[in-house]
Amino acid sequence: MLLWGFCLHSSISDVAKKIKRLEIQGARNVAIAAIKSVEATTTESKAKTKQELLVELSEAKEVLFASRSTEPLMRNGVRCVVQAVESSDETDVKNLAKVVSSVSEEFLERLEQSKAKIASIGSKRISQNSRVLTHCHSSTVMNMLKQAKADEKIFEVVCTESRPVFQGRITAKEMLDSKIKTTMIVDSAVRHFVNQVDFVVVGADAITSEGNVVNKIGTSMIALAAKEARTPFYVATELLKFDPVTVFGSYERIEERGTEEVWSSPPHGLIIRNPAFDVTRRDFIHGIICEEGIIPPHSISELISRKYPWILEST
Amino acid sequence: MLLWGFCLHSSISDVAKKIKRLEIQGARNVAIAAIKSVEATTTESKAKTKQELLVELSEAKEVLFASRSTEPLMRNGVRCVVQAVESSDETDVKNLAKVVSSVSEEFLERLEQSKAKIASIGSKRISQNSRVLTHCHSSTVMNMLKQAKADEKIFEVVCTESRPVFQGRITAKEMLDSKIKTTMIVDSAVRHFVNQVDFVVVGADAITSEGNVVNKIGTSMIALAAKEARTPFYVATELLKFDPVTVFGSYERIEERGTEEVWSSPPHGLIIRNPAFDVTRRDFIHGIICEEGIIPPHSISELISRKYPWILEST
Amino acid sequence: MLLWGFCLHSSISDVAKKIKRLEIQGARNVAIAAIKSVEATTTESKAKTKQELLVELSEAKEVLFASRSTEPLMRNGVRCVVQAVESSDETDVKNLAKVVSSVSEEFLERLEQSKAKIASIGSKRISQNSRVLTHCHSSTVMNMLKQAKADEKIFEVVCTESRPVFQGRITAKEMLDSKIKTTMIVDSAVRHFVNQVDFVVVGADAITSEGNVVNKIGTSMIALAAKEARTPFYVATELLKFDPVTVFGSYERIEERGTEEVWSSPPHGLIIRNPAFDVTRRDFIHGIICEEGIIPPHSISELISRKYPWILEST
Amino acid sequence: MLLWGFCLHSSISDVAKKIKRLEIQGARNVAIAAIKSVEATTTESKAKTKQELLVELSEAKEVLFASRSTEPLMRNGVRCVVQAVESSDETDVKNLAKVVSSVSEEFLERLEQSKAKIASIGSKRISQNSRVLTHCHSSTVMNMLKQAKADEKIFEVVCTESRPVFQGRITAKEMLDSKIKTTMIVDSAVRHFVNQVDFVVVGADAITSEGNVVNKIGTSMIALAAKEARTPFYVATELLKFDPVTVFGSYERIEERGTEEVWSSPPHGLIIRNPAFDVTRRDFIHGIICEEGIIPPHSISELISRKYPWILEST
Amino acid sequence: MLLWGFCLHSSISDVAKKIKRLEIQGARNVAIAAIKSVEATTTESKAKTKQELLVELSEAKEVLFASRSTEPLMRNGVRCVVQAVESSDETDVKNLAKVVSSVSEEFLERLEQSKAKIASIGSKRISQNSRVLTHCHSSTVMNMLKQAKADEKIFEVVCTESRPVFQGRITAKEMLDSKIKTTMIVDSAVRHFVNQVDFVVVGADAITSEGNVVNKIGTSMIALAAKEARTPFYVATELLKFDPVTVFGSYERIEERGTEEVWSSPPHGLIIRNPAFDVTRRDFIHGIICEEGIIPPHSISELISRKYPWILEST
Amino acid sequence: MLLWGFCLHSSISDVAKKIKRLEIQGARNVAIAAIKSVEATTTESKAKTKQELLVELSEAKEVLFASRSTEPLMRNGVRCVVQAVESSDETDVKNLAKVVSSVSEEFLERLEQSKAKIASIGSKRISQNSRVLTHCHSSTVMNMLKQAKADEKIFEVVCTESRPVFQGRITAKEMLDSKIKTTMIVDSAVRHFVNQVDFVVVGADAITSEGNVVNKIGTSMIALAAKEARTPFYVATELLKFDPVTVFGSYERIEERGTEEVWSSPPHGLIIRNPAFDVTRRDFIHGIICEEGIIPPHSISELISRKYPWILEST
Repeated sequence: MLLWGFCLHSSISDVAKKIKRLEIQGARNVAIAAIKSVEATTTESKAKTKQELLVELSEAKEVLFASRSTEPLMRNGVRCVVQAVESSDETDVKNLAKVVSSVSEEFLERLEQSKAKIASIGSKRISQNSRVLTHCHSSTVMNMLKQAKADEKIFEVVCTESRPVFQGRITAKEMLDSKIKTTMIVDSAVRHFVNQVDFVVVGADAITSEGNVVNKIGTSMIALAAKEARTPFYVATELLKFDPVTVFGSYERIEERGTEEVWSSPPHGLIIRNPAFDVTRRDFIHGIICEEGIIPPHSISELISRKYPWILEST
Repeated sequence: MLLWGFCLHSSISDVAKKIKRLEIQGARNVAIAAIKSVEATTTESKAKTKQELLVELSEAKEVLFASRSTEPLMRNGVRCVVQAVESSDETDVKNLAKVVSSVSEEFLERLEQSKAKIASIGSKRISQNSRVLTHCHSSTVMNMLKQAKADEKIFEVVCTESRPVFQGRITAKEMLDSKIKTTMIVDSAVRHFVNQVDFVVVGADAITSEGNVVNKIGTSMIALAAKEARTPFYVATELLKFDPVTVFGSYERIEERGTEEVWSSPPHGLIIRNPAFDVTRRDFIHGIICEEGIIPPHSISELISRKYPWILEST
Repeated sequence: MLLWGFCLHSSISDVAKKIKRLEIQGARNVAIAAIKSVEATTTESKAKTKQELLVELSEAKEVLFASRSTEPLMRNGVRCVVQAVESSDETDVKNLAKVVSSVSEEFLERLEQSKAKIASIGSKRISQNSRVLTHCHSSTVMNMLKQAKADEKIFEVVCTESRPVFQGRITAKEMLDSKIKTTMIVDSAVRHFVNQVDFVVVGADAITSEGNVVNKIGTSMIALAAKEARTPFYVATELLKFDPVTVFGSYERIEERGTEEVWSSPPHGLIIRNPAFDVTRRDFIHGIICEEGIIPPHSISELISRKYPWILEST
Repeated sequence: MLLWGFCLHSSISDVAKKIKRLEIQGARNVAIAAIKSVEATTTESKAKTKQELLVELSEAKEVLFASRSTEPLMRNGVRCVVQAVESSDETDVKNLAKVVSSVSEEFLERLEQSKAKIASIGSKRISQNSRVLTHCHSSTVMNMLKQAKADEKIFEVVCTESRPVFQGRITAKEMLDSKIKTTMIVDSAVRHFVNQVDFVVVGADAITSEGNVVNKIGTSMIALAAKEARTPFYVATELLKFDPVTVFGSYERIEERGTEEVWSSPPHGLIIRNPAFDVTRRDFIHGIICEEGIIPPHSISELISRKYPWILEST
Repeated sequence: MLLWGFCLHSSISDVAKKIKRLEIQGARNVAIAAIKSVEATTTESKAKTKQELLVELSEAKEVLFASRSTEPLMRNGVRCVVQAVESSDETDVKNLAKVVSSVSEEFLERLEQSKAKIASIGSKRISQNSRVLTHCHSSTVMNMLKQAKADEKIFEVVCTESRPVFQGRITAKEMLDSKIKTTMIVDSAVRHFVNQVDFVVVGADAITSEGNVVNKIGTSMIALAAKEARTPFYVATELLKFDPVTVFGSYERIEERGTEEVWSSPPHGLIIRNPAFDVTRRDFIHGIICEEGIIPPHSISELISRKYPWILEST
Repeated sequence: MLLWGFCLHSSISDVAKKIKRLEIQGARNVAIAAIKSVEATTTESKAKTKQELLVELSEAKEVLFASRSTEPLMRNGVRCVVQAVESSDETDVKNLAKVVSSVSEEFLERLEQSKAKIASIGSKRISQNSRVLTHCHSSTVMNMLKQAKADEKIFEVVCTESRPVFQGRITAKEMLDSKIKTTMIVDSAVRHFVNQVDFVVVGADAITSEGNVVNKIGTSMIALAAKEARTPFYVATELLKFDPVTVFGSYERIEERGTEEVWSSPPHGLIIRNPAFDVTRRDFIHGIICEEGIIPPHSISELISRKYPWILEST
């Protein structure tokens, strides 16, 4: 349990609260805000020794980790920064702050590059005159589809409305703004239309060590319907959404959100279950489109251990 | 094409309009209203010969059939009545009206009996301490679950919200009113929960000659998820929802409803597809719970030809 | 609840006890004994009126039905006889006894004929130089395989040991006595060998209205392994094992037998579950080999209603 | 074994030879020729008694049945005629000849009507702007597709070449002659294209009691690929191709044809296997399009026993 | 072929005999005994040169490898030790003996650590109030379930009896001794109960380069039934059970044991087949729980080549 | 677009033309010819600086790459050589030519060694008295089967004819020449025979980053039929057929060949589609038999990045 240290920088708790209240949302935005707050904490730290700084960072980490349950990208970002301090030869706090700045910057830049690479790789998978189905709203997927449009691919998008919060409406608007022909359907109509679709692509909130993908509730049903119709199903995501706790046995936690999202005035006695995500097993996924290329989800653990070994070292 | 005869009884066109506008809805209610309007038409008919009466009935039939596309129960009811007139030895219009009254009554009574039989049969399938999932709102299913409650079965119900029109809310209220423990989930969460469910039961809007069932959009995805988890999937329905046009090659028409049901103020240019139903193939259905007992859907054509041969004779 | 009438013929309760204690076993033997006891009861009845006789028969029926839970053949036999009395125009008890005798004889003869027909039909399905796998010990299957041998088919048999009671040993002996090359394996080795098998055939204890087959525990796993390897799976059985209560919603009851069959001296606190049967769904069954030929299990209800309508009329 | 009677009418052996040598081919043509030869035999018979006539007919039947192994339609036709003589009250040979004529005519006419009904029913299944795949050359399927064209359906056909005898080329020509856009592929390319196809329809050489369909080699692979892609697979066929010997245990015999069809000058020692047909199991078939409508193959036995009971009575 | 050298240390042949006679059993125990005997051999060796020592070790290896066919863990242990000698720069036999001692110790310690890691990782996968099914008796699985109990997980165990040698009884006792609620079923009842189970976990005797797992006969049937019911299936095992010969084409050999295990007094002429293991393909396995975490079996070869490259270098 | 430089060595364009016209064919032969032509170009180059040489090589590469679309082995070979020049420290053109020679030689030698290793590994998978099915003509597979014969394996081969170009005939002759019992079937008969086959092995034209295999049209249907019958399906191929462009999003291009291969004199208006290859997804492949052993296709990307990292660096 965390005992709040008086030294906790205000920006950490602020950011954590905003994440909790969904004022900051989207895996990427959450990660950016968290890393920046850690950077600020360090820069403005009054710690006198490396040891003191590490205590501060450890508290910051705990607070941020507690803000929302399914955020491996943010956690990996924070882990990355804290580890850099731990393993640094520097002892001077000022210099350590510079280390943090530089590592943070590098991490954020890498995120930016991954996004661009995924867009460029994924765009090649969009065939001319094809129909692409997506679910919910993923900025990685949006980016990739816009890239395809920029690459002069002619295609159209089918999007689900994505109950309970209707993120599909954001998707629809964003696609239409990019001049992409777009059709919306209710979530449960996917199987009715999936034979007329050439390609399914969704984003991810987390990837597990087994190669499974955690994404918006309903994703696994779409994957199932796609498989039944032999329609390719892809996940576009940064590898940094890999969650190392799943390597060591923990299940990825599925956040269960407020019932009012489903029904604001339900009858007395009604139980409402509102899990935000579900798990799509690796066998339903043709490929993960990530910054390292298109890979079978089955090789995710090996890829992580080759590319980001530090993720596995510090859970 | 129909040329409107001046002799068309006002109640026919009234009823047809109400059906079209969903003022009358639910397969059973639609059928009852239509049959009663035909009965009224006949009783008050000014036709002087059987021939004239048949012309009137034929127009009534056409108007009612055109009111909504996926209503085989109503159509079978109207067919049943019109056929009785055609095949009657009577020639006197007054007597033919009596034939119509008696056939109509018999048809409606049979509907009532079927409902009770299905409830009694289906109730036996609800195991003690089990969890039953249903989709949309089917009066036949509601009746069956209430019967199970009356038979002192202890069970709980999981219901989907059933976008776009949220009929699941009616289901939830009706179950809670019957003191049945009820949980609601969004449509796309079915696969997430289906392994914790012991039994799925849904209603039907139409049954085809291949043994497939047409029901609320999303039904076939639930059936797919249930099959993947080896969870039994049943359909509770009157046999009279069998649609004879499917025997002779026509597809069951899937009504496509207004886009505002999905999104009342969509962005400019967005296409919205809103099919009201989808098709669940026979291979996903453990059994059809009907007035003749629990049957494999594969034997539906033979059963219809044995029990209701007149359905096949007059399309 | 049954109030034991003093008029209950001793042979009824004797037979019921023997069935309960497995002194009489095998669906066919149980049915024969039960019918003969009913016949004896009637012949020696002291009833003075048809009404009195029917009371006796009703009690006999109840006692026999209670003797073991999964015995539709016996129940159908008893139903057949009692119904004959009910629907007879005779009123004289002596004459009714003759009706019972003649109906009983006819029923038993039909059983005998079914056995021969099944053997003759099934034998044709055994290809030259093939390997046939069977489970447990079914006299119908034994008969069929012996017929194939008599028809000069060259084939060999693989049989499971059929835990917990090792009925596979009886099968092995009977096959070897008939000079059929026989291999025994443990039950769990079926998947290891099923690709080397050309044909699976088992018996049945009950057939349900959905076309499912209830048979010795383990049958459904064999069916699953056979399907995975595309090895044909057949059930050889008399149609009279159809259980009409399943039409009207009841599940076929699965007898759960004594734990000592599994482990005679288990450690304290161990729970042992010992269901005698499991359910093999119709989709795993290529065909039911019955007295009417080889049929898809999906058409069982229609076939029963065409051939043995009385089964459906008196549950 | 047949001892050739001197009384065997020359036309019977002529026709049998032509069938054997494929000078007469196509299930329908073979059946017509055989029935006409039986009719001729009877008309010109010198038999003096019904008994003598039946001997002649029995020999004719045996010779015709031996001409080719997979011809249930022809066999059912001959059975139908011979049975009519057997069950006729007539004793006069002249009159019996008239019975034969009238039954033959009726049979042939029924065949003609079935063809038209199947075309009309099947045509309704062809959706506008769809793509239909077929295999080999089936006159029933050709007829159905031409009907769809006549019904102003806009669609295109994909046909396989159908090795080893390239019947797909006949199909291609016939479709092009009917102004239907047509694409040909090699047999093994079906899976590559099946996701772009909306509907598969093939003919049948025989239907078995289990509801399986025997058709040109390769049909079952197409069915498998169609199922994997959730593409509907239909069989268009007259019910009279039902083979009653399969009810009683016999397998439908699969003719194995000459090796030169596969390779006219194979290297020494090469074994060539050339089965003309394969078996498509009922579970791959959405529906059988027959003269009675579209039915699940699972109900075929019941339908035959309801519509053509004589087929089952005289094997 | 081995020419028995007179220099073979007695402990090697003793241990080999005990392994052969099952006096030493369980993959772990066999490995420990073999490694210790190799260590003793070296310590007491009279070899004067490294060369002579390697000849002794090579003979020891051959004798131990021949003792039982499916023992990759033991073989990898012996390989590890022999390789250390081969690649050592030491030439002095005494010093080489020290190398052997230290490598042996390290290997055994690593085994011990793996066991603890697997228990800790696997325990996290046991959900509260869940039901876990296991097969046969695996010390790795036992350890993991006891750890879950120690971690205050509330769960119950279902175990099969595991014919023919009833190792399930050892499992049952061990679980009951650990105060875990336990139910036993016969092997063939798994499919009957698998829908009521939340998690399946078994051990392994060998892992192949394809990612398949060799384990007690019946494991693959359980995996099949689990997959059909969408019940997760895990394998808990040390990576050192990876068998390198499978990389280079050899099949993992399946030991076939004595017939008396199945039936001590079988009738004359009965063939009994008694394979000790079967193969569960990677596609049935959700994850391998090993000392490196939970991994998809598909990445096993890469993981081995990363963690234990020496395994691949010395087959 | 390439502007033909006057410096392009004649042998490059010659070889490219021959590849285009299929005068050189077979992935291995194409690769050998291309590499040798690059080597010759370099040896005889008149370039004066490394820079000039690289321009020449770049043009050579472009011309060769354009010669045929599905040739990753050739492309990887050329890439390997060009990269060696790029990364060499040498600046002298003569010395660079020596680098090219040595790298070329090494590459070709490695190819030769791979072939031998695959043969040796694959041979061990051929069980005694088994039946092996192959498709088309792969020199890698031929080599492996001949090795099995040399290893005294007794087995027989079933080969398809492999329309449209009948490469199966080459396979048949080669197998018969090696005294291996061989049976030929038409492509569409695979499912009819696959249950009688113990093992399927085919070659590959390309491997994608997802682990899918591109091979002769029809391969994926065989894989599908093999899976349905639980018959193991293997691919024997050099890893160097891995196509790195698939990592970065491009689809492997499927060459579409001339229509005359299918029908030399088609009727006017007939469209003929003649793709040379299809894609077999990783889930159908038990293992890839390559120079590194037998691996799950799912780990291909990791294996390539470990063994041939340069492949990924220079697309």
